[in-house]
Amino acid sequence: MKSKSILEMLQVQLGERSYPIYIGEKLLQRSDLWCNWVEKKQVLICTNTTVAPLYASALTQTLKDAGAQQVNQVDLPDGESFKDWPTLQRILDALLQTQCDRRTIVVALGGGVIGDMAGFAASAFMRGIDFIQVPTTLLSQVDSSVGGKTGINHPLGKNMIGAFYQPKAVFADISTLNTLPDRELSCGLAEIIKHGAIADRDYLEWVEQNMALFFQRDQAALTQVVRRSCEIKAKVVSLDEKESNIRAILNFGHTFGHAIEAAMGYGEWLHGEAVGCGMVIATRLCQKIGRLSDADCALIHKIIVDAKLPVLPPPIGLNRFMNLMRVDKKNQEGVIRYVLLNGIGQASTSPVDEDLVRQVLIESGVPSHLE
Amino acid sequence: MKSKSILEMLQVQLGERSYPIYIGEKLLQRSDLWCNWVEKKQVLICTNTTVAPLYASALTQTLKDAGAQQVNQVDLPDGESFKDWPTLQRILDALLQTQCDRRTIVVALGGGVIGDMAGFAASAFMRGIDFIQVPTTLLSQVDSSVGGKTGINHPLGKNMIGAFYQPKAVFADISTLNTLPDRELSCGLAEIIKHGAIADRDYLEWVEQNMALFFQRDQAALTQVVRRSCEIKAKVVSLDEKESNIRAILNFGHTFGHAIEAAMGYGEWLHGEAVGCGMVIATRLCQKIGRLSDADCALIHKIIVDAKLPVLPPPIGLNRFMNLMRVDKKNQEGVIRYVLLNGIGQASTSPVDEDLVRQVLIESGVPSHLE
Repeated sequence: MKSKSILEMLQVQLGERSYPIYIGEKLLQRSDLWCNWVEKKQVLICTNTTVAPLYASALTQTLKDAGAQQVNQVDLPDGESFKDWPTLQRILDALLQTQCDRRTIVVALGGGVIGDMAGFAASAFMRGIDFIQVPTTLLSQVDSSVGGKTGINHPLGKNMIGAFYQPKAVFADISTLNTLPDRELSCGLAEIIKHGAIADRDYLEWVEQNMALFFQRDQAALTQVVRRSCEIKAKVVSLDEKESNIRAILNFGHTFGHAIEAAMGYGEWLHGEAVGCGMVIATRLCQKIGRLSDADCALIHKIIVDAKLPVLPPPIGLNRFMNLMRVDKKNQEGVIRYVLLNGIGQASTSPVDEDLVRQVLIESGVPSHLE
Repeated sequence: MKSKSILEMLQVQLGERSYPIYIGEKLLQRSDLWCNWVEKKQVLICTNTTVAPLYASALTQTLKDAGAQQVNQVDLPDGESFKDWPTLQRILDALLQTQCDRRTIVVALGGGVIGDMAGFAASAFMRGIDFIQVPTTLLSQVDSSVGGKTGINHPLGKNMIGAFYQPKAVFADISTLNTLPDRELSCGLAEIIKHGAIADRDYLEWVEQNMALFFQRDQAALTQVVRRSCEIKAKVVSLDEKESNIRAILNFGHTFGHAIEAAMGYGEWLHGEAVGCGMVIATRLCQKIGRLSDADCALIHKIIVDAKLPVLPPPIGLNRFMNLMRVDKKNQEGVIRYVLLNGIGQASTSPVDEDLVRQVLIESGVPSHLE
């Protein structure tokens, strides 16, 4: 059976912090792959109450089969609204209570929230222990598991507290997407569409043509899309690990998206939904300043609709929307830098005249009469 | 006047993370040195309620003279007992409330607690912004300002949460030691004695001979002692930034010291006092296993007494003492590794038979009848 299951491998090139991404079917069962990472190690699986009943016991068994010395588990509440200090502290408490030491390895089993928090906990525990990502959502497989951004939210801004901290390996098990709700699948597609939009027109068109297969959970199509998106993201990250310049293009749609998430209090809108809507606004901005043709703007809009993502923002007043964008981490000296497409497949960052942004926000459905 | 004031400079060699340490008189007034670091930058001075009234306004003026764009300040409560998450969060809140961005620089003005917390906050804010150490205690000048260890305490262990994060520069202003209480001066001497004990017999003997000058706040003697101790520590750190091996020798006396601090709840005994007493116990252990002569053991004991440090542990039961040592970060697979002297000036780490350690603890005054 093993010989028939799909398995691909990709290396993220970051010098001494390089690491492999395994992509394929039933990776949670592959003790032959896991033994390189956990043999004779104490492991803490960090997961949430949604994912734990589905996969935690299978993974625990696999880790034991792979020679792990001891496997403990901490189950966190599920959702972006719990990506905060009290929840992070539960991981740190679990590490201390089970007498973990510097050789312990943290395994993040879940979506992006789990990966971000477990990664940050691993970076901070005893000033840094190893961790492995096991992303179980399409979003985390194509986005947050690559690149080493970890962290938690602050009431005044998303991902404001964290670390650049690379995992030792990523296991992207496509089989876990079989239990993923469509709404979550759409969120992953938002980042996938972004990858095509900023870096690869052919890929974007391939994604458009295969959209139905993704929703049917076609394992081969999903493996291919995860692989290509990881490749695009890994290439950008390896050029600029700490987001000094080029990495910022991965934030296409995110300046607007983060404002939506912040306004809704995290969780009402999912991250991918906010990014989907944010890309619609960002695309309109590119069109408005003449960097994107009407046809390309329409194509991106269509794919976002096909991916079942929202294209209309929630009722946030115009001034509030602008203020929320100002606390974005990408800003320099208070000036908001927008990721702009120069045609599909090419992106760069630049400030934009504020009146123009306000006009695009109004045209995108942001009400100007609300505070 | 500037030409007469003492100023020395030392470079910590850590590749792209190398940084200078300025050591000398009245550095808080030297806008000519500061302008390289803060010109056109937004600055957050992170200090405490003890240090702020003494030095914050002078430093603020100097930073403005040096061309800083904006200087804000956060005053934290003073003491090791506040080296915790709620206090750390006040720094992060201040950074967000004053709309700091990735170009903001954090200046840590205070002792080791301030340096550790401000450094960890800088490492975590937006996943890392620059910071500068301005240590105002002898302890922080010779110890925590070199080497990039930052962090906070956890109820289950000291410095359990943090990051390896190097400052961009250190300003060790010897003049600030004029307002430092003798008890705090002694704490710095504990680490200085440790540097001699693990790396340089001549230095240890020089420290013994100059002890009175330190307590008289002789600026030249203090500059020399800070310089030499920083040199020793910087050399060890540059060989092993993340404490994989050799750096652990800097923990001489600390395994015992941390247990004392943890038992007393942080703050009752100061860190240097716990280390002083810890070195007495560690020295006895070295003598017991034949690595240190009776004369050398007596010499270290005498210098610790001369430095007005405690040599008798507080009333912690033997079993509790052993248990507290087991959660130390240096341990591997539950085995406590002790830093041992092989004569004065040479150190290495090794496990030691537990019964022997218990015996030495009892002989050092740890009561075996208490829990």
